[in-house]
Amino acid sequence: MGECDFKVTIVGLGLIGASYGLALKKLSYKNVSGLDISSEILIKAEERGIITKGYLSAKEALKDSDLVIIALYPNETINFIKNNLNNFKSGVIITDTAGLKEEIVTKINSILPKDLEFIGGHPMAGREGKGIDMASGEIFKGASYILTPVKENSEENVELLSNLAYSMGCIKVIKIDPATHDNMIGYTSQLPHILAITLINSNECDSIDSFVGGGFKDLTRIAINNSSLWSELLIHNKHNLINSIDNFQKEVENIKRALINGDENFIKERFEEANIKRKGIQ
Amino acid sequence: MGECDFKVTIVGLGLIGASYGLALKKLSYKNVSGLDISSEILIKAEERGIITKGYLSAKEALKDSDLVIIALYPNETINFIKNNLNNFKSGVIITDTAGLKEEIVTKINSILPKDLEFIGGHPMAGREGKGIDMASGEIFKGASYILTPVKENSEENVELLSNLAYSMGCIKVIKIDPATHDNMIGYTSQLPHILAITLINSNECDSIDSFVGGGFKDLTRIAINNSSLWSELLIHNKHNLINSIDNFQKEVENIKRALINGDENFIKERFEEANIKRKGIQ
Repeated sequence: MGECDFKVTIVGLGLIGASYGLALKKLSYKNVSGLDISSEILIKAEERGIITKGYLSAKEALKDSDLVIIALYPNETINFIKNNLNNFKSGVIITDTAGLKEEIVTKINSILPKDLEFIGGHPMAGREGKGIDMASGEIFKGASYILTPVKENSEENVELLSNLAYSMGCIKVIKIDPATHDNMIGYTSQLPHILAITLINSNECDSIDSFVGGGFKDLTRIAINNSSLWSELLIHNKHNLINSIDNFQKEVENIKRALINGDENFIKERFEEANIKRKGIQ
Repeated sequence: MGECDFKVTIVGLGLIGASYGLALKKLSYKNVSGLDISSEILIKAEERGIITKGYLSAKEALKDSDLVIIALYPNETINFIKNNLNNFKSGVIITDTAGLKEEIVTKINSILPKDLEFIGGHPMAGREGKGIDMASGEIFKGASYILTPVKENSEENVELLSNLAYSMGCIKVIKIDPATHDNMIGYTSQLPHILAITLINSNECDSIDSFVGGGFKDLTRIAINNSSLWSELLIHNKHNLINSIDNFQKEVENIKRALINGDENFIKERFEEANIKRKGIQ
């Protein structure tokens, strides 16, 4: 069976799930079901060709599915699998897309029967906003895709997901253990979200519009996001995140102390160090 | 005399000064001199048509000049005017481009003879990097231009600079007192620079490249900048800036406390507030 003949089911047709559907459509997958709690969303998804068929019933949607892509919040992801252990087809590959991995991978593997396989995934793809109306098959282009295989996973199925990510346009697939993922993502993704919303929220001025330049806009772009999802992600990764916040706060305090002391050299050195480090990031 | 026949002198052919030259060229200004300490830069500027003539001597460059645009660092701006009080033509309009206004405007006006006029200016235009090679006449397009007129200024000359900014492509000219400028800019421009460099510098991981997404890149783009200029700007505006840093740190502490307490609702509310505020910014 070629992979395009796989029966795929996407669970949750939000921004990521619906974008997955559009990407699979471009790759000529012929059998992509969608499962959602909203019939309105399902109709929209069918009309736009994001999925070939929509389901409100998990049992029906999962019945013949070879590959299940769960695009839900972390808690929902765990609960969905827990509640549907008997609905998956034997031999299925299940993956998710949540930006949090250790808790999800551990909890799911502790309850999963041997004939079902779960491989944690995190496409580093996204965009402002949320929901099916913001979906685009292009979001994977140029992105990194993280997979967090563990001892329960087979090399063959990990490679299958890796190849799928590349074929959707991802430029890099990283395989890393779930705990390292959460530690890195706390710093590279969650901390920036906190900084973006805090910069906006710490404004004490009336009207800043006229004084806002490209830098301020760049720093606050990701403040437009899915607040329910992000607050859940942050809470679940708090141990890593609090550490990243502490490191950040210490650095800001160093700058503040240098300002108080008029230590222009220290500040200049920090700018220079950042300049070099930022240029090193592709 | 039409304004395009004005003799203009640009002092300092870095990113902003040279960009000014290119913008004036597009507006058909026929007589734009450049003053710089580097003959190499002057030759480059002449060759590229950024200026019509280059000077190493301030006395010669300023002699017949109707409009002098100083594109130097804050300290240099003050010193340049102080050292050349006798070289300006009577009736000249002098403006600057530094992202700091109160100290500059006050110090310059305290030493300026009545027949010379200084109007503080701050084009909210810039780009990554620095120097003549990064210059572009396009940087003013869509930008705000701040003027900080004081009682010593004539309405007519402020209008002249305002019209010039609009003709270069700025979409908004804001006239505001120098102290308010420095307070606003501390929050909307200087604080974001501190956050950008601190995010980069607070990294304790070895290799983050694979985990870096669009958000991290957006937040750190302005970490590539002119470190000498920015450290000087920050030190001079430290009273406003320390206040902005304190507000920011308090907000981050609130988030951190909510993480420790598992208060997901608080975090969600902060995200929602930021979401709304950010959408309100054009």
